[in-house]
Amino acid sequence: MKPKNIVTIGGGTGSFMLLTGLKKYPINISAIVSMADDGGSTGVLRDELGVLPPGDMRQCLVALSDSSKTLRELMNYRFENGTLKGHNFGNLLLSALEKIKGDFVSGVHEASKILNVRGEVIPVTKKDTDLYIKLKNGKILDGQNEINHNYEIEPRGIEKIYLNPKAAANPRAIKKILEADAVIIGPGNHYCSIVPNLIVDGIPEAIRRTKAKVIYNCNLVNKKGHTEKFDLDDYVKAINKLVGKDRIDFVAFNTKNPSGKLIRKYESKKELLVRFKKGKNKSRKYNVICADLLSRESAEYNKADAISSVRSFIRHDSEKLAKVIAEISEIGI
Amino acid sequence: MKPKNIVTIGGGTGSFMLLTGLKKYPINISAIVSMADDGGSTGVLRDELGVLPPGDMRQCLVALSDSSKTLRELMNYRFENGTLKGHNFGNLLLSALEKIKGDFVSGVHEASKILNVRGEVIPVTKKDTDLYIKLKNGKILDGQNEINHNYEIEPRGIEKIYLNPKAAANPRAIKKILEADAVIIGPGNHYCSIVPNLIVDGIPEAIRRTKAKVIYNCNLVNKKGHTEKFDLDDYVKAINKLVGKDRIDFVAFNTKNPSGKLIRKYESKKELLVRFKKGKNKSRKYNVICADLLSRESAEYNKADAISSVRSFIRHDSEKLAKVIAEISEIGI
Repeated sequence: MKPKNIVTIGGGTGSFMLLTGLKKYPINISAIVSMADDGGSTGVLRDELGVLPPGDMRQCLVALSDSSKTLRELMNYRFENGTLKGHNFGNLLLSALEKIKGDFVSGVHEASKILNVRGEVIPVTKKDTDLYIKLKNGKILDGQNEINHNYEIEPRGIEKIYLNPKAAANPRAIKKILEADAVIIGPGNHYCSIVPNLIVDGIPEAIRRTKAKVIYNCNLVNKKGHTEKFDLDDYVKAINKLVGKDRIDFVAFNTKNPSGKLIRKYESKKELLVRFKKGKNKSRKYNVICADLLSRESAEYNKADAISSVRSFIRHDSEKLAKVIAEISEIGI
Repeated sequence: MKPKNIVTIGGGTGSFMLLTGLKKYPINISAIVSMADDGGSTGVLRDELGVLPPGDMRQCLVALSDSSKTLRELMNYRFENGTLKGHNFGNLLLSALEKIKGDFVSGVHEASKILNVRGEVIPVTKKDTDLYIKLKNGKILDGQNEINHNYEIEPRGIEKIYLNPKAAANPRAIKKILEADAVIIGPGNHYCSIVPNLIVDGIPEAIRRTKAKVIYNCNLVNKKGHTEKFDLDDYVKAINKLVGKDRIDFVAFNTKNPSGKLIRKYESKKELLVRFKKGKNKSRKYNVICADLLSRESAEYNKADAISSVRSFIRHDSEKLAKVIAEISEIGI
């Protein structure tokens, strides 16, 4: 049987977790990655070297890498002192390869060979562009990093979310979406990782046109001031609106509760678990696959696979999520 | 037939050239590398991260790497802008690996795997140490970089050249010298690449004790203010003195003259070709193998193999030199 073509759409941390689970299945994976990051090491490299943002790409490359644990650990290593402080080695690798090969996509291709990547990691656009949100009160949030740290988005309301300059989709991303058996959106930071893919010209159309099943992986926790009041239907509605069609066929939704202590810790930061109100919406056009998707690992720091572990404690279990996706997509193992 | 054990002793550029030629032969290569560099990118990394000097090691690893041209090019890539300006990607790789693995030697071992290195690259010492020269006028030159750029060394005379703190040899270096069929010293910057190996405790004794043939590759050009007045006998005498025995068996000496134009260019900077005064020294205890060792390549910039090309124009041809070494060492191809 021909391996199925699975496309993921997302950003860094969420895609890293998802791809780590999916890569164990006999499938062709294409990871389409948001290109709007401008914070941290990535932001400095964009400013100083004029490169495209490496951070999210790096995480997806590492997730799909069949190379040694040390090489994956190296890719995620952050320098701790001096002028290099905060720079991530993998980001430097991607930036240097972009310079050597002359463009970002060729650099990523070389990185994929060095890291022995199974599958393909595809920047959603090749355009050097930035994410903006215009709030209903007229204020403009400039760049993903500023957006990520602003908590007035939901209270004020969004008038417009856009990329500037406008960005056309990487043709490779469109091709892969059209050829896919399943397109998996999320999980990931809604406005900073998921939406920046869906506002790239050509991506919504490709999602509308593809014959693939479209699966949405809802986040576990709402983000303060961004999607604080969202329930599952709100997320799906927001995604479908950007796609321009009720295109989401399935949603993988976690029903396992974290410990009360952990929930209270999150709630104290105004981060509440995403709710699914079963009876609420009769016109719901998607199937909700409810399952235990929760990671039970302790959040111990794991150098090679640091990303998903250190940023959040309530998080998906990559194997459990991949199993549900495999069932929906009818992927054998 | 068992492949011969060949040990090279040197630093960056000279060893890079030599190893590039030697690696085509069916031999076991061990490259022993000076650890006194404190200039440029290497110096900044030592200061800021507290790592051991990566620059010379990097050049030897690249020379022996069987990886792709792009990966070798990446190792030699230098960032051109911002806070990363001047940093060499390969140096960052070695420094990050040292941090991840906990010590320099383990980091080099990992780098060797990533780069698919044929043979072994061995730091002459694991000690974090610096090179000093005390001149006869009492002045102390502090560090390899300062020594390299000081042109009063020969006129003033050296009272003492030493490492501080004192450094014991890497046991692996001693083992390889004792097991060698041939030990090849040079070429390389005399006081900055060659001597820093020979003043490491244990190295002279190992060279005295080994049954290997000891071959010296003399530089092509004298260095202004360092070895400006040296002829071949002076170099050999200086090396043998540090070794503590007339241990050099063979010298590979270039007899092919560069163009008059190139010679005049060098002479204008007080860099004269090294001379061999055939009749001068009746008690000469080593065989001089005279041959055309001169590179005829134009000094065109080659990104993957940049190091030997950009620093000097009168330079060895790696294949010609390796061929002479192979003949002396009785290595078949």
